[in-house]
Amino acid sequence: MPIFEASAKSKTIFHGPFVHCVSLGELDICEAGAIGVDEDGIIVFIDRDVKFEELDTVVKKHGWDDCKVVRIYDSGFFFPGFIDTHIHASQYPNAGIFGKSTLLDWLNTYTFPLESSLADLSRARHVYNRAISRTLAHGTTTAAYYATNHVPATNLLADICKHKGQRALIGRVCMNTDLSPEYYRDESTEATIQKSKECIEYVKKIDPKHELVTPIITPRFAPSCSKDCLEKLGQLHKETGYPCQTHLAENTNEVKLVRELFPECDSYTAVYDDTGLLTDKMILAHCVHLSNKEIDLVKARDAKISHCPASNTALTSGCAKIRKYLDTGIDVGLGSDVSGGFSPSILETARQAIWVSRFVAMLDGDHAKLSVEEVLYLATRGGAKVVGLSDKIGGFEVGKEWDAQMIKLDEVNRYSEGQSEHDGPVDIFGWETWENKVHKWVYNGNDKNTLAVWVKGRLVHYTSAYKP
Amino acid sequence: MPIFEASAKSKTIFHGPFVHCVSLGELDICEAGAIGVDEDGIIVFIDRDVKFEELDTVVKKHGWDDCKVVRIYDSGFFFPGFIDTHIHASQYPNAGIFGKSTLLDWLNTYTFPLESSLADLSRARHVYNRAISRTLAHGTTTAAYYATNHVPATNLLADICKHKGQRALIGRVCMNTDLSPEYYRDESTEATIQKSKECIEYVKKIDPKHELVTPIITPRFAPSCSKDCLEKLGQLHKETGYPCQTHLAENTNEVKLVRELFPECDSYTAVYDDTGLLTDKMILAHCVHLSNKEIDLVKARDAKISHCPASNTALTSGCAKIRKYLDTGIDVGLGSDVSGGFSPSILETARQAIWVSRFVAMLDGDHAKLSVEEVLYLATRGGAKVVGLSDKIGGFEVGKEWDAQMIKLDEVNRYSEGQSEHDGPVDIFGWETWENKVHKWVYNGNDKNTLAVWVKGRLVHYTSAYKP
Repeated sequence: MPIFEASAKSKTIFHGPFVHCVSLGELDICEAGAIGVDEDGIIVFIDRDVKFEELDTVVKKHGWDDCKVVRIYDSGFFFPGFIDTHIHASQYPNAGIFGKSTLLDWLNTYTFPLESSLADLSRARHVYNRAISRTLAHGTTTAAYYATNHVPATNLLADICKHKGQRALIGRVCMNTDLSPEYYRDESTEATIQKSKECIEYVKKIDPKHELVTPIITPRFAPSCSKDCLEKLGQLHKETGYPCQTHLAENTNEVKLVRELFPECDSYTAVYDDTGLLTDKMILAHCVHLSNKEIDLVKARDAKISHCPASNTALTSGCAKIRKYLDTGIDVGLGSDVSGGFSPSILETARQAIWVSRFVAMLDGDHAKLSVEEVLYLATRGGAKVVGLSDKIGGFEVGKEWDAQMIKLDEVNRYSEGQSEHDGPVDIFGWETWENKVHKWVYNGNDKNTLAVWVKGRLVHYTSAYKP
Repeated sequence: MPIFEASAKSKTIFHGPFVHCVSLGELDICEAGAIGVDEDGIIVFIDRDVKFEELDTVVKKHGWDDCKVVRIYDSGFFFPGFIDTHIHASQYPNAGIFGKSTLLDWLNTYTFPLESSLADLSRARHVYNRAISRTLAHGTTTAAYYATNHVPATNLLADICKHKGQRALIGRVCMNTDLSPEYYRDESTEATIQKSKECIEYVKKIDPKHELVTPIITPRFAPSCSKDCLEKLGQLHKETGYPCQTHLAENTNEVKLVRELFPECDSYTAVYDDTGLLTDKMILAHCVHLSNKEIDLVKARDAKISHCPASNTALTSGCAKIRKYLDTGIDVGLGSDVSGGFSPSILETARQAIWVSRFVAMLDGDHAKLSVEEVLYLATRGGAKVVGLSDKIGGFEVGKEWDAQMIKLDEVNRYSEGQSEHDGPVDIFGWETWENKVHKWVYNGNDKNTLAVWVKGRLVHYTSAYKP
């Protein structure tokens, strides 16, 4: 495969069906759209009900004679790129390796040894190259990454995201307490702040306008950081205006530990609030075990929640009550949480969000159930709010940037014996509604259905089945 | 792709790593095996620790100079074919289409209309061809199928399984009450029995020794059949010795309905016991809501349980307490339950069994958790017991038949940028243990990892990546 062009550099009309979420639970399905994207990757027009043979009229209307056309048809459609609001790029090689562990033993057994090994830049390059290629292949156009506590390896992650063209928030992981092993923690609060600043400066240097990569202040979680460290990170957040991310209330033993470590704080959530970190730019991963008072505090600060259902199930952390958060008006996105979560795919994470909501419904009633349309919203528009980019991404509107995936489902050849090799995992028999097709994609689709991926108009991934 | 040979017709040595389950929770991982399979598809020898360059010695030792060799190496291995103990072939086009429905409304909204439409044999051929190709591609070498209540379409399913080479139990679905709509039910008990006999005779005719396809007596579930219908099916079971399959205690409303319909019976399970159907040849799908007394009755009759976790979660039926069944000594296998279950893959079903066990563990404690090794056992050796074929399939032993899949995981090229197209979804970095590799396969693998599939020594599926 060729190295992709650094920019689209030409006007492009994307023609064919497109699907996106207009609100929680509501899809907009346009069966024949023509979306005009300019040289900077900005959506300039969206025309609906345009037959392919009418495309000339559209071109003339907009004076776009010099444009390219990218088409999808039959059971294919354009869909917004997925937004992964919580993923540890450094843990990708451990995807699927967790045994029967739970959070605190999982960290010591699997996670700290792997993360610390990325001090070796050659190893970090190996891991990050593959992690970014994989997530792009799964349609993730934006990700909020945790790297490790190493400055050079964290900066390398930013380089790779920029080079491969993935929109990313790059977090150097801050840890200065003995919750982390001696071989893998910052020497002091001063070191934490100094190193965090170095990473911020580096990302500012390689992408001054943060068109693609942005630094994110990343205290691992309360038990990993001393109170003064959290306070100084809170100050850094206030001074720089850069977003923050951390973990909150993932596991009951962790909640108990935080109560012991921070007896002066009213709750786990209050630890972040008391240290200046609980703002509208904070992404809180997990939030499985929050009291009503904590939920109100999260809402009051307009902090965001990253729901990580695959991880919470795999590590037996519990079932986050997402319906309650949505009803409260909190912004929620999805996080793969690799490698607590086993899969780098947000489509798989969306399925897992459905399953977790079913388990909550078994105990609390049907209202808890999330629909296909709702989890797709969380995976796109919800995620855009969580990462603070809802003005740019999450759906298809004039003025937004073209972060999109081309999805193709396979139509069963009625007259063959069905022995041909399958291109993708979803079979369309021909009698399905468009809603059926979207559901089939969500429940059985995978990266084989994602023929091409664009970020800010730039083609950043495609498969051999992509024939524009 | 070519039409496959009807039989292997030559001795074959399968060389490379192989993995299979020796008992619940215990894998046998052999890093360099040579498994000799004769012209009839029977395993004749298993030699361990055989390097490729030593294969000549093995050939000579067994006097197999005329044999073929099929190899897998690096991060690949042979694994027993999967056994799907509960799948509605007729519902395959609805995989992923269920909305927020639960069992009884799901039947009326999605299932009965589709099933009844397979009276059209051309449509049935379309659906069954694809369903069998898909399940084979996912490594399912044996399946216990529900067809529809139509004799010709059910017989067609048997033909297609035999033609494509999948081991199958073929069930015409019996329903004679108004639980089923008027347009889709047997006219009378006599019609039910007569039609069931016709399907039995047909399968006997096309495969007299039942080397590949076997009839299975299939009352849909208690609410679909009158008491005398169940009794006559029980007699048919006794007279013919053919196995039976049905649904049991999937959903609480269904359990309530059965209590109303059969007030004279002690329990839902007792309905089947009172009618002569609860024997050691009965496959009971779901068993989500059984009382302790019912569990004891299932155990006393040595009836088998098909665990359908994907379906139970999708339709919010509940979480079957599989650990309890295993502790009681009941034989348990996995069922995809397409299309209550959304996926035709038993690997996905195995993952779902892990997730369901995690949810049970969140309420009942860690003992409920099923391990990767345990769900693989349910998917192979457990399933073999459930379908009554444990003398022939489920693991690799001399005397058993070669029902197997060739699995390949992909090794990340350390020196590339990772931009090449990915062959499969599992990345191996090179430092993983064999146990890690198996876990990675279970959590992220799909049909792209299944390069080839054999049933009784016959190659029944392969992908373009298969290079024997």
